Amino acid sequence: MPALPGFRDFLPDYWTKQKYIFQKFRENAQKFGFVEYAGPILEPLELYTKKSGEEIVNQLYHFRDKGERDVALRPELTPTFARLVAEHQRHYKKPLKWFSIPQLFRYERQQKGRLREHFQFNADIVGLSNPAADAELIALVIRTLRSFGLGKEDFTIRLSHRGIWLDFLKKIDILPENFLKILGIIDKIERNSPEKTQNLLLEAGLTEKQIKNLLDLLKITEFSSLPASEFSNYLTEITFDLDALGCEGFYRLDLRIVRGLAYYTGAVFEAFALDKQGLTTGRAIAGGGRYDDLVQNLMGLDLPAAGFGMGDVVLGDILQEKGLFPTNFVKKSLFLCWNSPEMRKLALKLAMDIRVQTGCFVLYSLRELSLSKQLQHAAEQGAAAALILQSEALAVFKWLEVPDGRIGEETVQIENICEYLNSHILLAGNKFLL
Amino acid sequence: MPALPGFRDFLPDYWTKQKYIFQKFRENAQKFGFVEYAGPILEPLELYTKKSGEEIVNQLYHFRDKGERDVALRPELTPTFARLVAEHQRHYKKPLKWFSIPQLFRYERQQKGRLREHFQFNADIVGLSNPAADAELIALVIRTLRSFGLGKEDFTIRLSHRGIWLDFLKKIDILPENFLKILGIIDKIERNSPEKTQNLLLEAGLTEKQIKNLLDLLKITEFSSLPASEFSNYLTEITFDLDALGCEGFYRLDLRIVRGLAYYTGAVFEAFALDKQGLTTGRAIAGGGRYDDLVQNLMGLDLPAAGFGMGDVVLGDILQEKGLFPTNFVKKSLFLCWNSPEMRKLALKLAMDIRVQTGCFVLYSLRELSLSKQLQHAAEQGAAAALILQSEALAVFKWLEVPDGRIGEETVQIENICEYLNSHILLAGNKFLL
Repeated sequence: MPALPGFRDFLPDYWTKQKYIFQKFRENAQKFGFVEYAGPILEPLELYTKKSGEEIVNQLYHFRDKGERDVALRPELTPTFARLVAEHQRHYKKPLKWFSIPQLFRYERQQKGRLREHFQFNADIVGLSNPAADAELIALVIRTLRSFGLGKEDFTIRLSHRGIWLDFLKKIDILPENFLKILGIIDKIERNSPEKTQNLLLEAGLTEKQIKNLLDLLKITEFSSLPASEFSNYLTEITFDLDALGCEGFYRLDLRIVRGLAYYTGAVFEAFALDKQGLTTGRAIAGGGRYDDLVQNLMGLDLPAAGFGMGDVVLGDILQEKGLFPTNFVKKSLFLCWNSPEMRKLALKLAMDIRVQTGCFVLYSLRELSLSKQLQHAAEQGAAAALILQSEALAVFKWLEVPDGRIGEETVQIENICEYLNSHILLAGNKFLL
Repeated sequence: MPALPGFRDFLPDYWTKQKYIFQKFRENAQKFGFVEYAGPILEPLELYTKKSGEEIVNQLYHFRDKGERDVALRPELTPTFARLVAEHQRHYKKPLKWFSIPQLFRYERQQKGRLREHFQFNADIVGLSNPAADAELIALVIRTLRSFGLGKEDFTIRLSHRGIWLDFLKKIDILPENFLKILGIIDKIERNSPEKTQNLLLEAGLTEKQIKNLLDLLKITEFSSLPASEFSNYLTEITFDLDALGCEGFYRLDLRIVRGLAYYTGAVFEAFALDKQGLTTGRAIAGGGRYDDLVQNLMGLDLPAAGFGMGDVVLGDILQEKGLFPTNFVKKSLFLCWNSPEMRKLALKLAMDIRVQTGCFVLYSLRELSLSKQLQHAAEQGAAAALILQSEALAVFKWLEVPDGRIGEETVQIENICEYLNSHILLAGNKFLL
């Protein structure tokens, strides 16, 4: 009876990597002044259909509960976030800078970088509609990816603005009711052949001339070459802040990014890995943008907002491929060895003292074994050192992996053992524990 | 559209308390040498019916997924744990000491200390069938509760052994097929009146004499007064280890504890809060025991095991009532103030430098505000200090909450700002950040 398809069992090594990813998410969000919250995994189905329409039901894990409520495992956190903010915003000063690391669920075909569950770093700023907020969010994405050891050659932010497209479509006389359809075609432009895109645009009612204009707009790669408008000014202001925030060279203009979800209203962006030619590759590592109408539409409250989501799966694959997971981040332990009932009793007492008074993880044999067997177990369980009890007063401290320049073995006074271990931990610069 | 009944929205203050609880769970488990793992939230329904029978379905969130699989939100982690261990145990040296902090789900009537979801600290030791493992687990429960500031007067472990009951029932000539029924009556003895218990036991076919013997056994409160058997010896060995582990006075014999779940096979225990008279009160804070047959029954592999679960809800209520949540554990921030476009640009640059090079959480105003308004925002957002930029070279560092004996305001060189902040953080003994 294995795990369900698309769901992961996290054995200790795997989970340690996950915790490393979560820790970086949390650390960076906090350094940017975001505060953490969390929401329910199960929500009323209506919370999602209200925002995204009935068709989203096809991708959801949903059912009717024993109280006859239609409920769903959350496919994303933003509707929950909108509810929390609308219900409680009067207790908080704006802007709100909130983040969360929810697990999300979608019933869809499995493929590389896409499971039926994943964890996602979500950060949002609510109550501000100016580009400084967008820049702060994008800088957080960039800083977070850099903190994993990824550089300019590894990833980029593709920045765009839906307003530029809406402006353009209006100018070339497309009817507003066709806007979303055309944005949908642009959204898929990288996955489709040029011929297919051409055909789709023709089918959507565009003339050859309109299509040429559209493809010309897509070719613009310099912010300064964008047609003058409030939207291109908005993007320019974001780039000004990004440069001030030390993010120069980590982003590029890319009007192919329009974001599939219907609720974005302004600047949008996605983070992508780069191949050796500097071209974006694979699935998006993160994506987000401005959604000034969502809280209004869902909760009837006018609150501008912007945010992003960064999943753990695509990112984890990249870190794994590039060898960027630390290899020795599992904290190691101290193994207490005993060889008589008296020493066993002392070992138990010391185990507890050391656990309470030092940063050590303490193990001891839970059954009777020879000393050599105990040392073997210690090594197998990844202990960094053993403490072999000799008498009520003395023990031998023995490194199992000898750190640089340290004495491999040393007799120590048991009465000073916690101080000894604490100073060893300090002396070894956390090598002992890390 | 509020959260579903029995599900919690975790606003930042609430979530900070949750994270405090999780951190203590994790820290203590690690100090005892347990390693963390995690499993899927959604599992095949069969994983639970196989262990607990069809009747458990009434308490589950279960449904048929789009692939026609009967699935359930996990009501407990142990079956998942048994699967992981059985599938992967050959890659690990025994004993395994594993822990996890899953969120669990049950569809049941809501009441105090009981929601439809909760988080639970699970720790298990697999591959050993001796009392040292049981003692290590109980010591972990005790140490974890103590690390929250709870003492001997606040809680106790009620320790028992199902073998003692089975032995006794055999001796008074009860048929084995009635054992579980009678254990079920003992399990509910505290919730029922003496008359009700008497009637239930009579209905179960016990004679007045057998009932008297049973009630006499229940009166034993000293381990030394237990009828001699391998099971009471087992309990005595656990208490020997617990005393060596510094847990004397934190546990008591209580044969009323039999644990409802059918799969326990040996020593069992529950942690309870104590009232002012030293009597156990409320719902169990934690519960566990030995389940040597479960991995065999579920996965066909002979692996003795013991473990416990400790929920977040009852514990959180106790910590709240006793005022044991730290009041100032939210890390505070540094707010950068700017009052010209040049200083704004410098603020953004410094924000990023300080985020990367110090432990500070850095905020700045995302829109143009007067200096006094900026300082007001800084205070409202819980910042510990403000850094008011004066020129490219100089800034004023200003504590918003002045720590003991520190200068409230000081002009500092911007080129040394990270060193300055790091040393202030150290000097203030983390007061600045905590």
